[in-house]
This record gives sequence, C-alpha cells and structure tokens, in this order.
Amino acid sequence: MYKNPDIKYLFEPRGVAIIGASRDKSKIGHKFVENIHASGYKGKLYPVNPEGGEILGYKVYKNVEEIDGEVDIACIIIPAKYVFDSVKSCAAKGVKFAVIIASGFSEVGNSSEEKKIVAFAREHGMRVLGPNIFGVYSAVSCMNATFGPSNVRPGGVAVITQSGAIGVGMMGKTVTENIGLSAIISVGNKSDLDESDLLEYLVEQEQTKIILMYVEGISEGERLVSILKKAVLKKPIVILKSGRSARGAMAAASHTSSLAGEDKVFDDIIKQCGVLRAETITDALTWVRYLANIPVPKGENTVIITNGGGIGVLAADACEKFNVNLYDNQTVLNKTFSNVIPSFGSSKNPIDLSGQAPVSYYDSALTAALNNPEIHSVICLGCETAVFDPDVFSQVVQKQGVGYSKSKPLVYSLFGGSKIDHYVREFQKHDVPAFQDVYESISLLGAVYSNYRTLHQPPDPIQTIDMDGDKMNEIIRKVRADDRTFLLAAEAQAMMQIAGLPMPKSRIAHKLDEAIAYAEEIGYPVVMKIVSKDIIHKSDAGGVALDLGNRKEVMDAYEAIMHNARAYKADAKIEGVQVDEMVRDDVETIIGARRDLSFGPIVMFGLGGIYVEVMKDIAFRTFPLGRQEVLKMISQIRSYPLLLGVRGEKRKDIDKVVDVIMRVGTVLLKCKDITDIEVNPLVVYSQGEGARAVDVRILLSKPQEAI
Amino acid sequence: MYKNPDIKYLFEPRGVAIIGASRDKSKIGHKFVENIHASGYKGKLYPVNPEGGEILGYKVYKNVEEIDGEVDIACIIIPAKYVFDSVKSCAAKGVKFAVIIASGFSEVGNSSEEKKIVAFAREHGMRVLGPNIFGVYSAVSCMNATFGPSNVRPGGVAVITQSGAIGVGMMGKTVTENIGLSAIISVGNKSDLDESDLLEYLVEQEQTKIILMYVEGISEGERLVSILKKAVLKKPIVILKSGRSARGAMAAASHTSSLAGEDKVFDDIIKQCGVLRAETITDALTWVRYLANIPVPKGENTVIITNGGGIGVLAADACEKFNVNLYDNQTVLNKTFSNVIPSFGSSKNPIDLSGQAPVSYYDSALTAALNNPEIHSVICLGCETAVFDPDVFSQVVQKQGVGYSKSKPLVYSLFGGSKIDHYVREFQKHDVPAFQDVYESISLLGAVYSNYRTLHQPPDPIQTIDMDGDKMNEIIRKVRADDRTFLLAAEAQAMMQIAGLPMPKSRIAHKLDEAIAYAEEIGYPVVMKIVSKDIIHKSDAGGVALDLGNRKEVMDAYEAIMHNARAYKADAKIEGVQVDEMVRDDVETIIGARRDLSFGPIVMFGLGGIYVEVMKDIAFRTFPLGRQEVLKMISQIRSYPLLLGVRGEKRKDIDKVVDVIMRVGTVLLKCKDITDIEVNPLVVYSQGEGARAVDVRILLSKPQEAI
Repeated sequence: MYKNPDIKYLFEPRGVAIIGASRDKSKIGHKFVENIHASGYKGKLYPVNPEGGEILGYKVYKNVEEIDGEVDIACIIIPAKYVFDSVKSCAAKGVKFAVIIASGFSEVGNSSEEKKIVAFAREHGMRVLGPNIFGVYSAVSCMNATFGPSNVRPGGVAVITQSGAIGVGMMGKTVTENIGLSAIISVGNKSDLDESDLLEYLVEQEQTKIILMYVEGISEGERLVSILKKAVLKKPIVILKSGRSARGAMAAASHTSSLAGEDKVFDDIIKQCGVLRAETITDALTWVRYLANIPVPKGENTVIITNGGGIGVLAADACEKFNVNLYDNQTVLNKTFSNVIPSFGSSKNPIDLSGQAPVSYYDSALTAALNNPEIHSVICLGCETAVFDPDVFSQVVQKQGVGYSKSKPLVYSLFGGSKIDHYVREFQKHDVPAFQDVYESISLLGAVYSNYRTLHQPPDPIQTIDMDGDKMNEIIRKVRADDRTFLLAAEAQAMMQIAGLPMPKSRIAHKLDEAIAYAEEIGYPVVMKIVSKDIIHKSDAGGVALDLGNRKEVMDAYEAIMHNARAYKADAKIEGVQVDEMVRDDVETIIGARRDLSFGPIVMFGLGGIYVEVMKDIAFRTFPLGRQEVLKMISQIRSYPLLLGVRGEKRKDIDKVVDVIMRVGTVLLKCKDITDIEVNPLVVYSQGEGARAVDVRILLSKPQEAI
Repeated sequence: MYKNPDIKYLFEPRGVAIIGASRDKSKIGHKFVENIHASGYKGKLYPVNPEGGEILGYKVYKNVEEIDGEVDIACIIIPAKYVFDSVKSCAAKGVKFAVIIASGFSEVGNSSEEKKIVAFAREHGMRVLGPNIFGVYSAVSCMNATFGPSNVRPGGVAVITQSGAIGVGMMGKTVTENIGLSAIISVGNKSDLDESDLLEYLVEQEQTKIILMYVEGISEGERLVSILKKAVLKKPIVILKSGRSARGAMAAASHTSSLAGEDKVFDDIIKQCGVLRAETITDALTWVRYLANIPVPKGENTVIITNGGGIGVLAADACEKFNVNLYDNQTVLNKTFSNVIPSFGSSKNPIDLSGQAPVSYYDSALTAALNNPEIHSVICLGCETAVFDPDVFSQVVQKQGVGYSKSKPLVYSLFGGSKIDHYVREFQKHDVPAFQDVYESISLLGAVYSNYRTLHQPPDPIQTIDMDGDKMNEIIRKVRADDRTFLLAAEAQAMMQIAGLPMPKSRIAHKLDEAIAYAEEIGYPVVMKIVSKDIIHKSDAGGVALDLGNRKEVMDAYEAIMHNARAYKADAKIEGVQVDEMVRDDVETIIGARRDLSFGPIVMFGLGGIYVEVMKDIAFRTFPLGRQEVLKMISQIRSYPLLLGVRGEKRKDIDKVVDVIMRVGTVLLKCKDITDIEVNPLVVYSQGEGARAVDVRILLSKPQEAI
C-alpha cells in the first residue's frame, strides 16, 4: 500500500516508549505519559527512565532494551546531547520510529549532531521524526503522544505542521471549534521523515477526510509534487505556508533551517497540484472544517439570495475575488424566482428578497434554488432587519439543512445582533457553514470550487517530445572539456536546433552566389554579417548590413561588407558572410527552464521586456507536464491579453509557445548538467506564423554539482 | 460652524413628528414611537395619525400643522403616494427636515415623484433625508428615530450608510460587540441630503470620535473630497464601498439608483483624501471600534514579540500586506531584548521568545519594548503551548494595558484553545485590541499607520500654474463654431503650446534656406513633411523624410519632397515643408485629465503602450493638488521602477512628468468645455533632459452639457 509500508506503525504503533518519562507533573516527560494514558491508547505504553519505579500506574523501564514487547515508536524527551545514545539503544531494541521531541539541533545551527543521528538510524533500519517537535496524535490508535492539550476530538482532519507552536495552538483551537482530528503530526526539522512520507499514509487512511499542512520550506519538492497530484483526487489538501512576502521570507530564513525558496514558485506549483492554499490560519481551519462535508457541486452556477442589496453587492465582490461564478441566465432566474420573491424584490442575481421580506420568503427562495438543477450552489445572506426574525430563520436553516444541503453547497452569511451571533455559533456547532462576514462564507465556497475544478479537470497526459539527447549531451561534454559552465551563443543555438526550437534561419556563404542563393532560400528581408575570428566588433568594421530586401541589395551589401572588412583589417582571415533571416518585431516572450532547489525541474513563462523584471508577471510549473497545464500557465499571466491580440491585432501563435515550453523543459530533462535555460526573447507572431527564438542562454551546474 | 447651520437640528431636534405613527405593534410606525420613547429622547415627540388618540402615552396629532411646539424633523412612514401631501403639510408647519422612511421612489424607478418632493421641500426651506431609509439615531439627543434595535449603545462611532439592511444589521452588531455609537444615519436614495451634509456636522461634533461610511455610489464627489480632506485631520474616517469588482459594480448598478463609477478612481481618490478603506464589514467594524482609542504612534518602527517562529513569519507576511514597517536596527534590538529573552530565543524582529518561554518573558519583553522610545508600536503574538498559561498572560495584558498601551499602539494575536477564546473576548470587552488571527490585529495596525501617515504628511500646498486661459478658450470657441466636440491635431497642439507642455519643436519652411535654418535651430536629427491640403497621405506621396542627421541630408530631402509632391499631384498647392524635431525613443507615459461624473476634474497617470490598457496599471487623483501628491500618484503604479531606471538606465525626468500633470490638470480647470485631455505618449527622457508630448487628444462636452 505505501512506498514505505512501515509508516503505518507511526500512526498505529503496537507499543510506545517514552524515553525521559518523568514523575514530575510540570515536566513534558510526564505530560506525554499522561496524554497517552488519557487518550485511551490501544497499544502498550512503556515509560523509560533510569530511575525506574512507576508513573500513573505504568511500570517505568530503566532502558529501552529492557522492554519485552514490540516498541514501534520511541518518543525521546531528553536533552539534545543524550539523544544519540538513546537512538542507539532504540536501534538495538528494534524500534521503528525515533520521535525526537528534543530541540537543540539544526534549528539552532547544530546540524552535525542531527545528521549523525539520522545516518545512524537509517543504517539500522530506523526512521526519525523531528527533532524539535511536539509529537504525534493519531485517532485510529487513540494515541495522543504529544505535550499538547489532552482533550483532542477525534474526527476526519489530519494536520501536518512544521511549526510546533502553531500545531499545539491548533490542537487547542480544534477542540474549541469542534473540529475532529484524525491525526496531528509535528515534523519540526524534518531531518528524515517529511510531509511526503506522512502524506503517503494519510492519503490512503480511511478516517482522514481532508489534510491540512502548515509549511515553512520544502526540501524534496519533486517527490511532494508527485504525491500531492495523486492525493488531491482522493481528498482535499489545504496548505498554509508562511513567508509569502519578502519580509516574511526573510524572517522564515532566519528562524527555520529549511530553505524557503521563492514564494511565487511555490504558489504556482502548489496550485498546479490542485492543492488549496490558505492565506490565514482562520481560512485554513474554516476550509478543513467544512470542505469534507460540503457536497462537490455539479457545476459552476452560483446564486446569491439576500434581503439586502448592499450586502448582495459585497457578496458579488467577494465572488469575483474568490473565483465563484455567479449564474446569469435571466430566463432561468426569472422562472425560478418570480413566484417566490416579493414584487419589490429583484430576480437578478443577487436575488434580492428586499429588506421588507419576512423569513418565509427565504424558505421559498431557497427551496426554488435548491430544487433547480441548473443552479449548482447557493449563498444565502441575511441582515437582521425589522422583519427578519432569526428564530424563524433558524427553522428554515434546519429544514434546508436536512432537506437539501446534502445535494448542493449552501453557505450562509448572517449579519446583525446577539441573536444572529448566537445562531451562527449554533449552526457552526452543527456543521452548518454559517458565518457573520460575507467574505468568510464565500472564501469557503471559493475553496469548494477550487476543489471542484481539480476533480473535474480533463485528462491532461504528460507529453514527451522526441529529441536527440545524446547529440545535445555531446555539445555539453565539449563545454565541460573547455572548463566552462556556460554555453557560447553558437553552442546554445546548436542545442536549440537539435531541440527543434524555431530559430531564425541562418547560413554561412563563402561567395556572392551562395549569399544570394541563401537569401532567396531564407526569404527577404535578410541580415548579413561578416564571419571572422579576427573581427570581433562586426558593426564597427562595417561588417553588418540589416534589412536587405532583394537580390540587388544583397549583392551590394556583400561587396560592401567584404570591402569594409579588408579595409578594417587587411590580414583578417575571413570565413564567410552569415546570411540570417531578419526577425520581424512582434510580441516578445521569455521562456525559461531551471532546476529549482526545492522543486527540481521547473519551467517559466512571461512576457519579454520588463514584464518579468519589473512587473513580476510570470508563471511557473514543474516539468514534465501536459498541454492543458502549459496553456493554463500561459493564460495565468496578467499580460496574457497581449497574446490574444489587443488593439485589433491578431491572436498570436500560442500553440507555438506551448511547443517551445515543452521543448525547453524536455532539454532540461535530457541534459542533467543543465541548470538554467532562458530563451529571451522568443518573438511570437500571429497564429499559424510561428515564433523565433532570438537569443538563448544555457548554464551548466558547477562541476561538483554535476549528477 | 456648519455651511448649513440647520443640519444640527437633524441630530439635535427640539421636536420630532412621526407621520404614520401606529398603535399596531407590528407596524414600523409603532416601532419609531417605541424606539424614541425607549431611548429617552430629550426633545418632544409628536406621533401623527388622522385617527388621533394616544400611543404609549403620547398624544397623537391628526396632522402636523396641529402641533404647537417646534418640529425640527418629521419622520414620514406612510405609503409613497401620500408622501408629497405630507411634505406639503410639513412645509406649512415649518419642519426643518423631512426624514422620508417610505420606499417606492427612485430605487424602483420612480424618480419623478422623488424630484418633485425635493424641489418642493427646497423651495420651502426644508431639507429631505432619504427616501428609502431606516431613520436617524443620535446619541447626543438620546434619540433613536429608527426601526432598528432599541438598545443602541451610546459612544463615539458615527455611521452613515447608504444600505438600510446593512445599517440595521450594524445597529444590532454594535450592541453585541459593545461598540458605542454617537449616531447612525441612513441616507438611502440621497435625493437631497447626502454624506457630505452629514459629515459637516459629525466632523465638528465632539461626541463623535470616528466616522464609518457605507457607500455604493458617489454623486457630488467634488464636495465630498473637499470635506473629507479636512475631516481626516480631525478624526479618522473609514469607508466601506461595495462594487469593488466588475461583477459587484454590475450588481450595484442594478440595485442602486446612484452611479457606481469606476472603483479604481474611487479607491485612489478616497486614499488621496486620507480616508481608510475597509474591504469587509468585519475590518470596518474592528477599525472603528479601536482606532479612536489607540494612541497615534510617534513613528513607524514596529516590533513583533512572539513565542512561535511560524506565527512570527505569518505576522511578518501580514505586516507587508498591510503596510506596517518592521523595525530592523539590530543594535537597538539586541540592546533592548538580549536581557529579556531566553538564550534559545532570537532578538531578530520578530523577537522570538521561543515555545519554551513561560509568560514571564512576555512581561519583560513587552516592558522593554514599550519603554524604548525607538520602538513605536508592538504586535504581541502568543500560541498556547505547554508553558504558555493564558491565565497568567491575562495578568500581563492587564498590567501592560494600564501601564503602557496608552502611549503606543499594542495589538495582540492569541491562538489556542478555549481559554484563549475566553480571554480574547474578555480583552475585547475591555477595549484591548486582541484577536485570534494575526491578520486581524495587523490589519488594524495597518489602519493605525495609514491614519498616522495622513496626520503626518508634510504640507503640500496646491500649486497653480499660470497659463493664458483666454487664449485657450478662443481656440475652443472656434471648434464650437465649427460644430465639433473634438480638437484637430493642430488645435490640440496649439492648446498645449499655450499650456506650456514640452512639444516637439516644429517650424514650417517655405524655401530650402529656411528649412536648413530651422533644422539647425531645432537640432538634428529632424523629420520633414510636406504641408499641403491637397496631399492627405503624405507618406504615399513621398512627402515625408525621417531621421535627417545633417545639413546635406536636409537639402537632399527638401529637394526630394518637393519633387515627389509635384510628381504626385502637379497642381497641388504646397504651403511649405514642416521641419520637426525627431523625438527620441524613451519611456512612454500617458497623462490624462477628465471631468469625472462622480468626482469632477481628475488627472490620470500611467505608462504608455499596453500598461494602462492591458495591465490596468494606472493612478488617479482629483485636481487641483500639490506636488507631493502628484509624486505619490506617479510612484503608486507598479511599473514605476521604469521611471527610476532599470537595467542600468538613468532615472527619468520625473519632475517633468509632475509638471506636465499639473499643466494638463490646469487646462481642464481653465477650459470648462473640455471633458477629456489625453497626452499619449509623453516620452520621458533621462533626468534633466525633459520630455516630449508627442500626441494630444482633446474632447469637448456635447453642446447641451456645456457649463
């Protein structure tokens, strides 16, 4: 079932040893024994302390080896300097997981000790969780092996957190908010086990309906991406990542030992995976709380029902912000609502029952909306006015909740006094997605639709493009032999020629006849340049002629170039005259591929000039990928309308852009030495007319980095 | 004191008539009498109903005229069709304000009745509030003349709302949230009195500490802007405006009778005024609740104190989002905190006390931060961990609250279980700005700083630029005479010449000698063009020569142009040859000025090409304005770095851009007929080298619109 079948024992251990168990109630080593005991853990609990004795009725073992039963996990709660010895004992006993609670390792710069411990553990068939963590809670084993609150509610939400404080805070918060947990695991320094390992188990585990991850940095991003892509088809995954802003990233770098990376890359890739990214803890908890229970909608037609025009407009604003699509088929809307709204209301979406409508209108309007198969989800807004009675409204909610909300998403925003306050809390207790602010309910519906789109995206098979990797790597070998980590222009061009990129046509003529023949073959206008190792500054030497429009101009230019070259340097060895296609002006794009430190091979797309540099208008994806995803990537940038054609211009050759992105990505995969490719600019012509890769820059890894 | 001194009587009426008062408890006409009675209104209450009798012990008058005392306001709660007659009676009685609660007017398309009523009222010295409103609450008179909740808490927050439902909901919400109101007024259709009229009173009124406005559309924006600019210096003003998104604006247009206008224009101008714009009702209420009580900081050095690195990073993200500046002077930070944080903590901002720090560390760290004059505000974060005891923490909050928070902004975000939940509510009840999500507390601090910047902006006197308006209006008269609403290129150029815009130099030569002399005077390179009414397509006729670099080229080109012209059309009447400065390529900008339907004269700035069109990278301001504000406007666009110089280019001549914006705005003020001016492009050269207005388009109002 799992790549690492043992991972099951981290969540369903047969025996747990608490190394550093303490009788002192103020100690964390006591809290662990207490919490595991209180949670009704199904396996065997073995407190370990050289002093022996008893804690809470459990026999205390002097060391791990002494224990006679199976010990699947050992929670190590002793000072950092003693941890290695303890890990050795665990290995001797055959413990499967060392759960190192202790801090004082890489998070304070002490990486060597951490590495030593992990290396030893792995050698001896043991895996390490932590160090610098608060532990593991697993509902399926009724095991609360943490120093967090003892009264965790079992349920369907699994949490993986890189921050201990946020994790412990969240344990408390989920209790207060009635959110049930299937597991909460602290990964801390991620010295060995990381999110990916834990996801492998949680994605398959039946009790877990939805997964929330708090992340500060990603190390093995490639593996994580491949797990996430499959996982989201089984259950929704929500990620909260800090370090979104430049200032936050700085703070993250100074406090966590893992690399933060560029947030924009993370953001694009996590969305590519179909993962929901929350910005705030509040949103993250709201989403995981309701998302697993709200039915997946059958389509994107959302209707707002309101008793206030103003709040309806605020909701429409929120719908645009959170990407919720308001239904606009006025014929259907009229038919659905004309009989159930008062004459002074409006059947335009937002459906306005008006401030004079008593609650009974809500009942009819909700029934009409929920019964109409053309309407796929409903946002119900209510302001407490003179005729809006929250007590009556709560009965409507109960009725609709039982009758319909199982079939379609139905979220509520209610605004008013103490009765509203009371009912919103009550509704939430009964898992009805009701909120006070319209932005809260619509942010949730936005997450519902984001998940819907992930589940409904058409198959998008990864495309492979045939190209001669050997031939490309041969060029690279020559560059390596020359002790360079960059390719010369001609080498990069040769690479791209092999990769099948649309390069400007170019030939080298050795005499006038050839120059004319090549120019006719390439098509006018052409550019001509002297080719000579002895003439570096071709323009200064009068060795360049632009925009040659016909045979006559080519002849004149050839003579002039030759004449000028000889005049410039009489003894120059002239190899010929290069005849190039003259690249027309059109939309300039930048296409890149690089080996990202977090995510491995990624591709990049943006518009040329200063869009990427100044406007940060750029999109990223991991590679390889399917055609649809490349199109999504291209259409994601703000300047995309330029490719669709503005000011009456024709649509540009977007297919060609897709093809070039695919090819550039493939080169990166075929040539392990390459770290960076940048095609800048790729000039894109009108649809059907292709593109031209004018300039290409390719960098190689430093020799020691070569794979 | 007020432009309209009577406005005082709307808030402090000596007598209130309730026209349509009812004995039926289910009627709004009853609710008014009940609410005014319950609130302990200080003036005289006069229920009016043709049936007479008594309501709640008050004598019911058969009509308004019958009342013997002063009636400053009459609340009219009868069907729309009877309102006009009632207004007539009010006029006869000498009522100062007709507060028309009734709906059924312009909001349902019945504008004529509404206009008739207002016209009559104004003629008879009476002002109208509404129609389609829920009434007025005024704490100073203990008057709750609304059909909202009866238990409004008096306090310092004034609310003006265009939406009835949101307003009534807000009355309830403020009670639940312990927010005290000085006034809440519903403006509804704004047929006569609007936000500006009410602001004139509220800004001066002592009880009002802060003002919240809910707005859907602005009509007399010019007046509002001038009031707001002065008002923000006396008390903070928060605006919540719906219709932010395209979809929301559509919804707003369909439900409100007032024009929504472009949200981007509204947003820029409202910020120009120093008004705080909230996106959500939650933010708006949070801000008005705390902003008046939190001291204005003395500077922008903010410090985060936390017990969790992760939540510290989330807070740093929020600080960037909400424009809160984190203090980074490490010398001062070390000195301040090194003695009060544990060895495993960090004195880098966010100051990390670490998860192992008990609450006592907070006490020391907060004391250190609050006592240090270099630190101007503090964000205190706490995750409920094993050693973080909320009970103890609440004592720290109490102590700091009393001791220091009066001198500096200090906001809290606390995350954890039920105790945290409890204390956050408790703190809020005692007006301590404590929240559960970091984004909430930092959004509030962002508002504090936004207000701080408004109060601390240096004087920025409005600049006037001298130009000959008569001469410009003379050109316009000719255009009018020609029955056009647009200026020809030459006319627009002449206008801009008078306005002192940097136009490309241009002369018309009638013979070769002149052409040469003009070219030398203008400076090479120049462009030459044939001038002849008989030759429209100059290029086709060979009548244009570009990039002429010297005397010889000018001579050749002159001969060629003349020759070509004659060859093209032998009988063409040739007026001469235009010699133009050739405009060098550089950064292209667009500068505009227009008469906005909501805000009157406004100016616009963006970068040329597709930045404005596709990227919507554009900034607006009302005009006239000061130099500093123009600079702010320019630096606000995302593509601003292009003007600062990217890729090693020099800084552009931003001073010249400021000057052109000032001049274009001034033209709009001087020429009342002009509706639109667009300079596109204004090519901006390096600093000190000026700019060139290459093309200018000027539109006039349609004749019937002319002022």
